[in-house]
Amino acid sequence: MSLEGADRPALVVVGTGHHAPTPDALEVLDDVAIVVDHDGTITGVHPRTSDDARTAIERAAEVVRLAPGQRVLPGLVDLHVHAPQWPQLGTGLDLPLERWLFEYTFPLEARYADVAFAESVYSHLVPTLVSHGTTTSVYYSSVHERATELLAEQCLLAGQRAFVGRVAMDHPEGTPDWYRDATATDGVDASARSIEAVRRLAASEGSTLVQPIVTPRFIPACTDDLLRGLGELAVATGVRVQTHCSESDWEHGYVLDRCGVSDTEALAGFGLVRPHAVLAHGDHLGDDDLDTIASIGAGVAHCPLSNAYFANAVFPVRRALARGVHVGLGTDIAGGAHPGLLSQCAMAVTASRMLDDGVDAREDAASRGVAGSRIDTVTAFHLATAGGGDALGLPVGRFEVGQQFDAIVVDVDAARDGLRRWDGIDDEPRLFEKIVRLASAADIVTVWVAGRRVR
Amino acid sequence: MSLEGADRPALVVVGTGHHAPTPDALEVLDDVAIVVDHDGTITGVHPRTSDDARTAIERAAEVVRLAPGQRVLPGLVDLHVHAPQWPQLGTGLDLPLERWLFEYTFPLEARYADVAFAESVYSHLVPTLVSHGTTTSVYYSSVHERATELLAEQCLLAGQRAFVGRVAMDHPEGTPDWYRDATATDGVDASARSIEAVRRLAASEGSTLVQPIVTPRFIPACTDDLLRGLGELAVATGVRVQTHCSESDWEHGYVLDRCGVSDTEALAGFGLVRPHAVLAHGDHLGDDDLDTIASIGAGVAHCPLSNAYFANAVFPVRRALARGVHVGLGTDIAGGAHPGLLSQCAMAVTASRMLDDGVDAREDAASRGVAGSRIDTVTAFHLATAGGGDALGLPVGRFEVGQQFDAIVVDVDAARDGLRRWDGIDDEPRLFEKIVRLASAADIVTVWVAGRRVR
Repeated sequence: MSLEGADRPALVVVGTGHHAPTPDALEVLDDVAIVVDHDGTITGVHPRTSDDARTAIERAAEVVRLAPGQRVLPGLVDLHVHAPQWPQLGTGLDLPLERWLFEYTFPLEARYADVAFAESVYSHLVPTLVSHGTTTSVYYSSVHERATELLAEQCLLAGQRAFVGRVAMDHPEGTPDWYRDATATDGVDASARSIEAVRRLAASEGSTLVQPIVTPRFIPACTDDLLRGLGELAVATGVRVQTHCSESDWEHGYVLDRCGVSDTEALAGFGLVRPHAVLAHGDHLGDDDLDTIASIGAGVAHCPLSNAYFANAVFPVRRALARGVHVGLGTDIAGGAHPGLLSQCAMAVTASRMLDDGVDAREDAASRGVAGSRIDTVTAFHLATAGGGDALGLPVGRFEVGQQFDAIVVDVDAARDGLRRWDGIDDEPRLFEKIVRLASAADIVTVWVAGRRVR
Repeated sequence: MSLEGADRPALVVVGTGHHAPTPDALEVLDDVAIVVDHDGTITGVHPRTSDDARTAIERAAEVVRLAPGQRVLPGLVDLHVHAPQWPQLGTGLDLPLERWLFEYTFPLEARYADVAFAESVYSHLVPTLVSHGTTTSVYYSSVHERATELLAEQCLLAGQRAFVGRVAMDHPEGTPDWYRDATATDGVDASARSIEAVRRLAASEGSTLVQPIVTPRFIPACTDDLLRGLGELAVATGVRVQTHCSESDWEHGYVLDRCGVSDTEALAGFGLVRPHAVLAHGDHLGDDDLDTIASIGAGVAHCPLSNAYFANAVFPVRRALARGVHVGLGTDIAGGAHPGLLSQCAMAVTASRMLDDGVDAREDAASRGVAGSRIDTVTAFHLATAGGGDALGLPVGRFEVGQQFDAIVVDVDAARDGLRRWDGIDDEPRLFEKIVRLASAADIVTVWVAGRRVR
């Protein structure tokens, strides 16, 4: 009996869906049954009228039948979120990066020593991102161990898949004395304790969804000793790494000056460019850097909206993909002033068009931009789903056997807003474009993580 | 008695508001009473505790007191909307402009010969734009006279201030034979009848909110005879003009080739650059063109999102303002794939930063962009409100005596989404930034046009 029970699908979702398993291919799953087991793993994607589908539907613990105006798509993987910056979302973007950090961001982040404040923010942030369809989030926390735990708790509570990283930063010039690790050793020790705490917390809930991540802020905020210590910590604990890399002219130049090599090479030297490490931004990566990242199996978090404010250039998605680099998308909350990844998909397409065409009409059209840079909504959505999953080495982002069922349902008939299906006009590829460019949180009516409904 | 009644304010709105009467100044109206008469005209903006405010509140027919988390702002003026393209919002943007028009847009626009179809679209479009806070809209309709009337009817029904223009287009090469005016004379005659019909319709409702507008599609779609005839029609009827001007490399070059002068000079020669004419896009305008437009008192509809797809460059807002050109914002639905103008404000800032910084990291930072191009949210919001009002010669966009009370109320405490006020963190200028970058239609809880509540 119990064996038979374990064999029963936990969930079958019946309806039409879209996914982008490769950067340039939209697959329409027309009238299918997606079969999910008790671990949240997809065990089959069958035509609805097939025998396999019928059997699964008959035996399943739960069957969800989508309405004609609903579409199921993979959940979104946000590779870059600064959780403590949530209250400043949408503000201060006229400041240059250094002033933004010292006058605006560090004072806010320092407040997370206050546990009640941290809880009030994180209990709003995490459910809001889930409501936007973000099923996986890679978070920077602050330097505070307790607030970092609280963030992990909120992810567990909301059922979101997450990497939660206590920020390490100790450089006497690159950080203020009122918001930093006192020494490199302190920074490594606190990070080690935070890894343990997040692991313990997830284990106590029986969850594998929430994991710690080693998080040096970026080279300008860290001494060599801290960077080296964190590289060793990543090896010792086996957890992933996230940091910023070659984001802006200033940051890229700073590392060249200080380390004598590119940001990527410097990070690699400290042991921080590892398989499934997430390097945020990367707008100023050279081809050698891209090759290094590809060969190690790290990835880039492309944050197209933030980049317009802090990166001084557009990240060349096409060039990175052509060199075999894993690329996913990030909001970069709060450098990127919008929650959710669908709006970042639209912005990634828009930014790629501006890189392709150039921006200054007084220049000759032929030399104005970088021809061949443009991407479309399919590529952008691939980055936001399977691309992010591949970067992290997680089995999410595709509706395929063996992948985890992290998914969203979008209602294209609600007609609340600009998103609306018009009979006789919209085919499935057009509907997919509309969803990516127009769906708001209100249009996302269901969210699953690992087969469990979380909204 | 009746004289006394006429003296009474129709409406007093009590609370805190923001507006941007000039391009670089945000004014916070802290705890004020905005007094509105029966014509929708603002007759006073007083501190709430003043005697003037007290008297007005006592005598007013209606008093609206904003909640502590509500802010009143001027309504948004969308200078460029292609109404019949609404069903294709968000789709087809990978096509170049010519293919987009012939394969995608013209076939859709041709369907508005079907009155029932036109009604189904326009009865969704207009209320949706109002729900986004668009209190004034400048519409392109299709070539169809009846559908144009239907659009005007929907504006009257929704209480939206609008200019509604039947599109004229007759060029045998620039338009398909199944969607064009048969001859220049036919185009002028149909446009004249449409002007009369819209005027008659508004008069029958006793409304001055909805007006016709002369609408040659753009030079490539019109013969010289049609353009000249429409210029004469504008003089004869005294109605405003809208058209596209120097949008893309292709269009700008086409006019140079055909007319031997710039798009602006050619349009001026046909009598179409007139006071308060709206020229859409203008990304490729030279300084001479800008000076011509400024001296005549026409304006530019800057459509920042659309431009990333169809204009091959970023419109130089700062340069245009410095030369005295009226600049407002437009969605360019459906070339711009998002409804509402707040998201266009954010995109205008983002695009200006990309023009300022440039896009290709492989170029030297010093020569990569056009320094001095960036605008902030205050300037963008000015364009979307007072800038649009000034371009049209309408008294809207500012909370000042003599202006019409077109306004929206945004709820910054709803915490539905990314927009949220945090106590002890957000002052009024920060709250304004958040509203512009983050407020969705759901956060816009009230809309007034000419003092009348329409949402």
